[in-house]
Amino acid sequence: MEKVKIALLGFGNVGQGVWKILNTNKREIMINCGYEVEVGKILVRDKNKPRAVEVPDSIVTTDINDILSDKDIKIVVELMGGSEPSKEYILSSLKAKKHVVTANKLLLATVGDELISTADAEGVQFYYEASVGGGIPVIREINESLTANKIESIVGIINGTTNYILTKMSQESMGFEEALKEAQAKGYAEADPTSDVEAYDSVYKLAIMASLAFSTKVDSSSIYREGICKIDSIDIDYAKKFGYVIKLLAIGKEIDNELELRVHPTMISKNHPIANINDSFNAIFIKGNAVGDLLLSGRGAGDLPTGSAVVGDIISIIRNKADLRSIGEIKSNLPLKKVKDFNEATSRYYIRLQVADIAGVLGEIAAVFGQYDVSILSVNQEVIDKDSVSLVFITHSAKEGNVSNSMKVIESLDHVNQIASIIRIEEF
Amino acid sequence: MEKVKIALLGFGNVGQGVWKILNTNKREIMINCGYEVEVGKILVRDKNKPRAVEVPDSIVTTDINDILSDKDIKIVVELMGGSEPSKEYILSSLKAKKHVVTANKLLLATVGDELISTADAEGVQFYYEASVGGGIPVIREINESLTANKIESIVGIINGTTNYILTKMSQESMGFEEALKEAQAKGYAEADPTSDVEAYDSVYKLAIMASLAFSTKVDSSSIYREGICKIDSIDIDYAKKFGYVIKLLAIGKEIDNELELRVHPTMISKNHPIANINDSFNAIFIKGNAVGDLLLSGRGAGDLPTGSAVVGDIISIIRNKADLRSIGEIKSNLPLKKVKDFNEATSRYYIRLQVADIAGVLGEIAAVFGQYDVSILSVNQEVIDKDSVSLVFITHSAKEGNVSNSMKVIESLDHVNQIASIIRIEEF
Repeated sequence: MEKVKIALLGFGNVGQGVWKILNTNKREIMINCGYEVEVGKILVRDKNKPRAVEVPDSIVTTDINDILSDKDIKIVVELMGGSEPSKEYILSSLKAKKHVVTANKLLLATVGDELISTADAEGVQFYYEASVGGGIPVIREINESLTANKIESIVGIINGTTNYILTKMSQESMGFEEALKEAQAKGYAEADPTSDVEAYDSVYKLAIMASLAFSTKVDSSSIYREGICKIDSIDIDYAKKFGYVIKLLAIGKEIDNELELRVHPTMISKNHPIANINDSFNAIFIKGNAVGDLLLSGRGAGDLPTGSAVVGDIISIIRNKADLRSIGEIKSNLPLKKVKDFNEATSRYYIRLQVADIAGVLGEIAAVFGQYDVSILSVNQEVIDKDSVSLVFITHSAKEGNVSNSMKVIESLDHVNQIASIIRIEEF
Repeated sequence: MEKVKIALLGFGNVGQGVWKILNTNKREIMINCGYEVEVGKILVRDKNKPRAVEVPDSIVTTDINDILSDKDIKIVVELMGGSEPSKEYILSSLKAKKHVVTANKLLLATVGDELISTADAEGVQFYYEASVGGGIPVIREINESLTANKIESIVGIINGTTNYILTKMSQESMGFEEALKEAQAKGYAEADPTSDVEAYDSVYKLAIMASLAFSTKVDSSSIYREGICKIDSIDIDYAKKFGYVIKLLAIGKEIDNELELRVHPTMISKNHPIANINDSFNAIFIKGNAVGDLLLSGRGAGDLPTGSAVVGDIISIIRNKADLRSIGEIKSNLPLKKVKDFNEATSRYYIRLQVADIAGVLGEIAAVFGQYDVSILSVNQEVIDKDSVSLVFITHSAKEGNVSNSMKVIESLDHVNQIASIIRIEEF
């Protein structure tokens, strides 16, 4: 099988996530782009630093030139963060005619147009899906899916740390300091949490989204910024009382060709879809003049979610260069997958029966369920009229076939008047 | 400016939506693909049928050959629905080397692989984002954003009609028949609602999504199907009692290389994100082994949302053929947009003050607000201790500058101890 070689700049959390995905999902990646993706080189600062993921020594380097001069490396993936040397390395890679993928929000927000125009000038591809919203494909959404729209507004919970803190404050009545400490203990917040809690992180991400959504260049210093440090539990309580939830929102609107751009704690109706995005989840709510309201939500950080966006970008670059017909051929030659016999599917069940109000009926029914391996979690009984009662069963997980067989027997029992309802109960 | 000519097959609801978007968003479309998109021909069954949208007589035809033989038409957009003559027209268009966009879920679910392989063989592009989820870019999500993932499950509310009916039954305690009638009156349900309420529509859409998500070919007849007609208000009430919501869900899972595929009414926890997707909104909840949980929600039907997906596909086709560098050039030469002075931004405000418990303070504060045009919606007063009280104001929409100026004056008042909190209240 043909391979495409890539290099990783940086091998921290996200870099290791990318490595894991390339290994675990080799088959899916091959199906989706027609190639195996192989990490040819990894740039690190310190070769001897212990790492959770083991990689061959031979591919680890501390010298960017090993990567720039390697003609076999077609794609450079920058995951170091910060402004320098990341910027220099990206520019050098582009000038060495390598395609670049980055997750660097700071660079995108501050010198994004320089990077994009350099890539254009060099005739190579430059992708940065992971710079906003981790695994949520918001960049592709704006750049490729909503191209038929004039985007009117984009509102996001785009920082998982602050959303986690606000969720704890709201759901468990913690104070800000206590919630911050828990976020730090869980690895959601850094030792120095300034960038998150003072909303700098959200400002960079809003600058990137707004530049794309409103087809202009947004200077992140033009965005009003207010963090969550001053939010008091008293305000959380008042918000509830008035039917609101407090979220740190990044807000971008275009009204009469002027932009309104701000990041601040915001009270929104508890019934709004983004009011229910909790913990470290992110969400982006977009209004387009054709599509209407669109919500995307998912994990905004973490090794695998962010790695999902990075590897998705790598695959896009390869596909753009590949012969799509050969991918079509790969896909059309895949083995068909078997669809499971529905009788073998498992589910929990809500079952409502109407039965005669006579002693022993419940026992009779329960015995049938037992016979067919359908285990009962709970039973509710309610009187319907003087002769009949309603029995509502909730089952543990059971096989479809067993349930339907047991129902056939139960239906035939003398004192069962009607099987009124069977509804499956699912968790996802 | 250069133009790309397209033809519309069918000019009903969605066709008219496409026409409107192409006209209203001409500028955005040009920025995003570098071309103006012009409708060169429209195929209709009856030229004289009155239509809400007026189009020039000269472009309307009843003969598909007018379109197939027109060398200037590069893209054919099939919006007639049904199986024939749609299938024949799509195949003829592909064989005439025209790219094709369709919203036809029935064709995709039944003969999708024939259409895709014909497009591949002819070397033309074939897009069908609008076939599932209306304006929600679920096809692109699976095909392009989540390519780094092994998709484990995909669960969707993919029929707006039934979601509207179930929402009415749940929130307004309507019976099924009554809710169906209201859906029909509002145009959400057809005169013959069988395809929606008996879940055929959802089955086709699940077949399309599952084929893509699990990289196989799904025969829609292998999907278990159960509609919502038998759902009783009693079951809705029991669901609430147990902490559930009933939704018509399309469920696809891959477990050990076997697929589980089913569409049926389902009880899910009221805290699950898709439990809160109401009315005619659609939602798709995807689990990938890298990205984790991802939710997309938006309008699953309607002229403009579905048109958004169709026109997005048209733009993708043009971009795939265009010189992307020239689009980059267009974008980099766009005029910068002005960012509004933050003092001119308007919002509603929650303002919490600590003031001395002395008669007249409230009046004094209210007078300052009045002076700066900050209009008060409500005031709440609570005693803090024997000397001070907490005053919580909710304002009507006011200008940021006016609020901050008024706060400066209020802060200086003798009996105001502290401005404890100011939080903006927003609606989106």
